[in-house]
Amino acid sequence: MPLEIPEVVIDRLPIYRGLLSRIMDQGRTVISSHELGIELDVTPAQIRKDLSYFGRFGKQGKGYIVQDLLDELENILGLDRRWTAVVIGIGRLGRAVASYPGFEEEGFDIVACYDTSPDVIGTEINGIIVQSIDDLPNDLKTKSINIGIVTVSSEYAQKVTDLLINGGVTAILNYTPSRVQVPREVELRNINPVLFLQSMTYHLKKLFDEN
Amino acid sequence: MPLEIPEVVIDRLPIYRGLLSRIMDQGRTVISSHELGIELDVTPAQIRKDLSYFGRFGKQGKGYIVQDLLDELENILGLDRRWTAVVIGIGRLGRAVASYPGFEEEGFDIVACYDTSPDVIGTEINGIIVQSIDDLPNDLKTKSINIGIVTVSSEYAQKVTDLLINGGVTAILNYTPSRVQVPREVELRNINPVLFLQSMTYHLKKLFDEN
Repeated sequence: MPLEIPEVVIDRLPIYRGLLSRIMDQGRTVISSHELGIELDVTPAQIRKDLSYFGRFGKQGKGYIVQDLLDELENILGLDRRWTAVVIGIGRLGRAVASYPGFEEEGFDIVACYDTSPDVIGTEINGIIVQSIDDLPNDLKTKSINIGIVTVSSEYAQKVTDLLINGGVTAILNYTPSRVQVPREVELRNINPVLFLQSMTYHLKKLFDEN
Repeated sequence: MPLEIPEVVIDRLPIYRGLLSRIMDQGRTVISSHELGIELDVTPAQIRKDLSYFGRFGKQGKGYIVQDLLDELENILGLDRRWTAVVIGIGRLGRAVASYPGFEEEGFDIVACYDTSPDVIGTEINGIIVQSIDDLPNDLKTKSINIGIVTVSSEYAQKVTDLLINGGVTAILNYTPSRVQVPREVELRNINPVLFLQSMTYHLKKLFDEN
């Protein structure tokens, strides 16, 4: 397996994995790059190229063995183990994120939640008692915490991110519209819904201008 | 301007636009592809290639004129006008989404919210009274609604998406983990936080396996 896989390919692997998982649930054992391409709306050549980074799973002209490919993808993505995450900032969004059922189902355990407000500290979400943000540095030292999920107000995003990174966290999911700076070795993903909307308005505008 | 711009380029335009907007706030008038590249962690060649789809903004060796490039990007993306959106499903997540301040700031007005629960219908979020989902088809006929934001439980995602599309909505932001089907002419964006986490575990696993 080559060491350097392009980041865009890695970002597509969870999508392949989700699709293969659904295909397996349907009881199918083999699938062609052509069929995968139709499902994902990309060319079969792109599928073959993406998956070629991870070795040879297909039989020439027979397609991919679903189980083998799925096992390998889950192994590559580290989904064959569980990961721990903390949520910082328990407003409306933080509460929704901390109680999102999809995380646990997919191997991500929310193990702690933090806030600064005395009204929120001590309240419960999904069986977790919200702690003071002041507890975070010590918790990061004493507990195994893999991922930090940042749902504070924009103005505190960088400060909270720094706290997480100083405590050794190397994966940050930033829900704030704020652009935070992280060192090169830290993985950062931004969920900014405005960017999703803005990429659709290009098409909306074309549609409006045509009519 | 060529008619067919690759979808991956369109998806990057809002990121360019955000960066240029910050640069302008700093009072700078000209920026090089090299500097843009450093800010966005991509090569200057990629920047020049992406922006070349939209005409010539740069002076050879002098960089881009920030204001001109920003105006053009906002025009291309349709950000020089306001767009309307509705939120369907007012649970924790729907409530967080409907009250997200970033939408209005960036030209997206949430004009209505819908739910099925009698406990939720009639309650208020950000000055909007939650309506029954039964009102949606008629509202889509009589009001100008550009975007549908789907925050219902997974099992209702397709049904709600179909309602929106049947009412003429051509842009859907799906917050549910469910994969919904839409006709080719409808723009769909999925915000599934699990996919973001899964693309980070690849790196976490590498880190763990090395230590």
